[in-house]
Amino acid sequence: MTDYAREIERWDTWEITCMGHSDKNPFVDYQIGGTFKSEHECKTVDGFYDGDGKYIVRFMPSFEERYEFTIKGSFSEEVYEGSFDVKAPTGNNHGPVRVANTYHFAYEDGTPHYSIGTTCYVWELQGEELQRQTIETLKHSAFNKIRFCIFPKHYDYNLNEPLSYPYEGTPCDSSKLTKENFHLFNGKAEGNRWDFKRFNPEHFRNIEKCIKELRELSIEADIIVMHPYDRWGFSLMSREEDELYWNYVIARFSSYRNVWWSLANEYDLMPQKTIGDWENYARIICEKDKYGRLRSIHNCRPFYDYTRPWITHCSIQRQDVYKTAELVTEWRERYKKPIVIDEIAYEGNIQHGWGNISGKELVRRFWEASLRGGYVGHGETYMSPDDILWWSHGGVLHGESPDRLKFLYRILSETPGYGLMPLQQGWDEVCAVPESADGMAQEVKSYYLYYYGFNRPSFREFYYDDSSEFEIEVIDTWDMKIERKGIFKGRFRIELPGKEYMAIRAKKCL
Amino acid sequence: MTDYAREIERWDTWEITCMGHSDKNPFVDYQIGGTFKSEHECKTVDGFYDGDGKYIVRFMPSFEERYEFTIKGSFSEEVYEGSFDVKAPTGNNHGPVRVANTYHFAYEDGTPHYSIGTTCYVWELQGEELQRQTIETLKHSAFNKIRFCIFPKHYDYNLNEPLSYPYEGTPCDSSKLTKENFHLFNGKAEGNRWDFKRFNPEHFRNIEKCIKELRELSIEADIIVMHPYDRWGFSLMSREEDELYWNYVIARFSSYRNVWWSLANEYDLMPQKTIGDWENYARIICEKDKYGRLRSIHNCRPFYDYTRPWITHCSIQRQDVYKTAELVTEWRERYKKPIVIDEIAYEGNIQHGWGNISGKELVRRFWEASLRGGYVGHGETYMSPDDILWWSHGGVLHGESPDRLKFLYRILSETPGYGLMPLQQGWDEVCAVPESADGMAQEVKSYYLYYYGFNRPSFREFYYDDSSEFEIEVIDTWDMKIERKGIFKGRFRIELPGKEYMAIRAKKCL
Repeated sequence: MTDYAREIERWDTWEITCMGHSDKNPFVDYQIGGTFKSEHECKTVDGFYDGDGKYIVRFMPSFEERYEFTIKGSFSEEVYEGSFDVKAPTGNNHGPVRVANTYHFAYEDGTPHYSIGTTCYVWELQGEELQRQTIETLKHSAFNKIRFCIFPKHYDYNLNEPLSYPYEGTPCDSSKLTKENFHLFNGKAEGNRWDFKRFNPEHFRNIEKCIKELRELSIEADIIVMHPYDRWGFSLMSREEDELYWNYVIARFSSYRNVWWSLANEYDLMPQKTIGDWENYARIICEKDKYGRLRSIHNCRPFYDYTRPWITHCSIQRQDVYKTAELVTEWRERYKKPIVIDEIAYEGNIQHGWGNISGKELVRRFWEASLRGGYVGHGETYMSPDDILWWSHGGVLHGESPDRLKFLYRILSETPGYGLMPLQQGWDEVCAVPESADGMAQEVKSYYLYYYGFNRPSFREFYYDDSSEFEIEVIDTWDMKIERKGIFKGRFRIELPGKEYMAIRAKKCL
Repeated sequence: MTDYAREIERWDTWEITCMGHSDKNPFVDYQIGGTFKSEHECKTVDGFYDGDGKYIVRFMPSFEERYEFTIKGSFSEEVYEGSFDVKAPTGNNHGPVRVANTYHFAYEDGTPHYSIGTTCYVWELQGEELQRQTIETLKHSAFNKIRFCIFPKHYDYNLNEPLSYPYEGTPCDSSKLTKENFHLFNGKAEGNRWDFKRFNPEHFRNIEKCIKELRELSIEADIIVMHPYDRWGFSLMSREEDELYWNYVIARFSSYRNVWWSLANEYDLMPQKTIGDWENYARIICEKDKYGRLRSIHNCRPFYDYTRPWITHCSIQRQDVYKTAELVTEWRERYKKPIVIDEIAYEGNIQHGWGNISGKELVRRFWEASLRGGYVGHGETYMSPDDILWWSHGGVLHGESPDRLKFLYRILSETPGYGLMPLQQGWDEVCAVPESADGMAQEVKSYYLYYYGFNRPSFREFYYDDSSEFEIEVIDTWDMKIERKGIFKGRFRIELPGKEYMAIRAKKCL
């Protein structure tokens, strides 16, 4: 019998490695699974083959109690049984993130989760030094979610070979690839030789290491399982091959509490996949991910139908060069799910319009969307002599937005409840109050946050009622300063500096 | 027989003053009219009573030839006849502005008119010193159109009494009017005593002086005939009183070649007027203005139906806090008329969202709309200790946009033809070419203007065809600099500074 932990924290991943058959093709010809029982739950999960005769089963316990397990399957004639104890979580372990209050997120222990994501598509497939840099950068940032792909990425600024490939085999020759001709390699370039029935465990072990490093930093791993930026043919596998892949990915990753599933990046740029295919992958996740991790699918142009019940939150790409944050109010109404705008254009200066807005504009979009009760994702695409762009490779940040997003995160963290909702008032400000079931009903709220965006009022006038006292603060969202103005009641006027990106916070004195 | 000019310039205003009855109410009980005949035209126009027994008839001749006139009416038993000669225009006299090429404007002599408007609602009803300052400011600006009202304005920052009133009588007491209570005076405040059948000629003479001063500067007078910002009851007159007013206004002003008619500012904020009323006023203008001056009507929220045949151009207020310039492409398609966005938010820092955008954002909106084949109006609303804001009172300008609008005007003036049209290409730039009937048909154009707005590309790539040579200039629309990059052909790449508000101009070498 192999070794395993006798005690773990609630929401950590328990794991057992068992030796088994290594003849034939263990990825398809043998299987392993585990059943876990405790007073409050009983789950059966698939394990997976990790190469060299090793089979692994992973499990995330949700209760603080003793668990009995049984590991069995065709991988071996042996059945492994035993137990382990689950103790209270420590440190930053608040459990997995769930949807809270319809439009927001919270960890399973009830701690609110204000999502401030970023995107580094293939940071984990770069060299170790760059991976280390990325982790170091994240450690000092506000980002608590990062989007990245399992498959390597082929695209402008993404011509290099990845650290590893997901399958046994050899890639096409990329020696003639240039910035000018890369689009000719799109899809299945000539010369790829892969065995889509034999995974490369090393590739997945590396990703797991990265998921665990993120977990240590309390950063959600928003894993993009499929995407169209491909020269290796991974986007063009058969339905059967895709299913094998999905099962393998879920068996390996789903027990990590910080995993979110993004079925695809820009699903609509993969014409070879039908809605039926995506719904089939969704069915597999719902069946095989026993933890109900957050699930979405990201568009380029048309949205996927976010009303589908398996979709836990919207994962939106901007719908308009000028406006997107502003549409959060409407999308909340339509979908009644958390609105996450994972792509709203990136801070940078590359040639493409999706990757060259200013830090100021990106931060404005974050504030605008946040006060409308949504969440935004960051990305950075500054030109670099070595073509290392945060948006894809990670590394270090050069932009002006990250510090301001840290400041926004602070403000969001000071919101009562799980998040904000927009209050429909004047047309020339966005006003947010804490999310509540009673909506517009309650007359005077206890907390208001106003944002003026690119407007530059020199003052604003307020009236809640005749008697309530409010503490007023003027917030400079760009200079990251909070000025306490005092206590006001009745009709009052608040002076502002007549510059852009100002906010006002009003807290009722209770 | 009274005196009159024996010779005037084409498109100038010829005028004759005749003495007549001053008993009863000459504004309604007597009438005067003139008939003007030359080889190429014959027009009959109404004159008007100017007080003190004086009746005036005005006429604008459109041909360089001898005109015979007959002046008669119930104002006198006498009939006045005579002739005058019309000689060629001199200096800046290019004639009245007309619609040219469906979407653009040109003077009657064929000179293109690239409209760069501004708004000073009641500049002409301020004291003489302020009037003089306004004229001096306009003289050094790019503005070639100014919007202003005949009636005085009552609104935030507009609490003072005008230089004069349009009617005989006395205004309500405004001594208790404050910034806080002014909305209580909206509409017909108590205590106004006006005779809506007796005009105050002095009021109109002052406006005419201003129209003529503008004409000297080649600035179009976009006259707002009605508006809702009122404490004197001028917005609440009866249909009969309104008709008298319209006839008087047209008789007095229509012969000035720089007059445009704006039936109303924010017509939709005047619930007491029906669509039937507006159509009736339009009918009066079409019948009584013999020169076919440009006609439109300005909205607050819903557009007036711009497809109505009497409307020569759209006079639009922004429809969206974020986007409006961007909608020009669509509005051109819909209305097939020149698109003038007379209000797109003003540069300033007052409390209202319509009056506190930055100069940078205003200039961006001008460029964006211009390259989409439309025109924008400027306005300025900076807080001022004496509450003198350019937007309403004129005076001096404080903002950053006017110099940049002068630069934009220069670029527009260098466009071949009458104006620009948008070319639908990539989504992350706006590309304009000279307006042409063939639209998309012609393969390679001779002139392209690209604008990147708030996007900050470090370079852009171009390809027209293999053989055409293009001279490329990089335009910094904010720093007002044009950098010549050289001659290029085939596939080429143009480096940009990776900052906002850049444009590229490509002129085919012929």
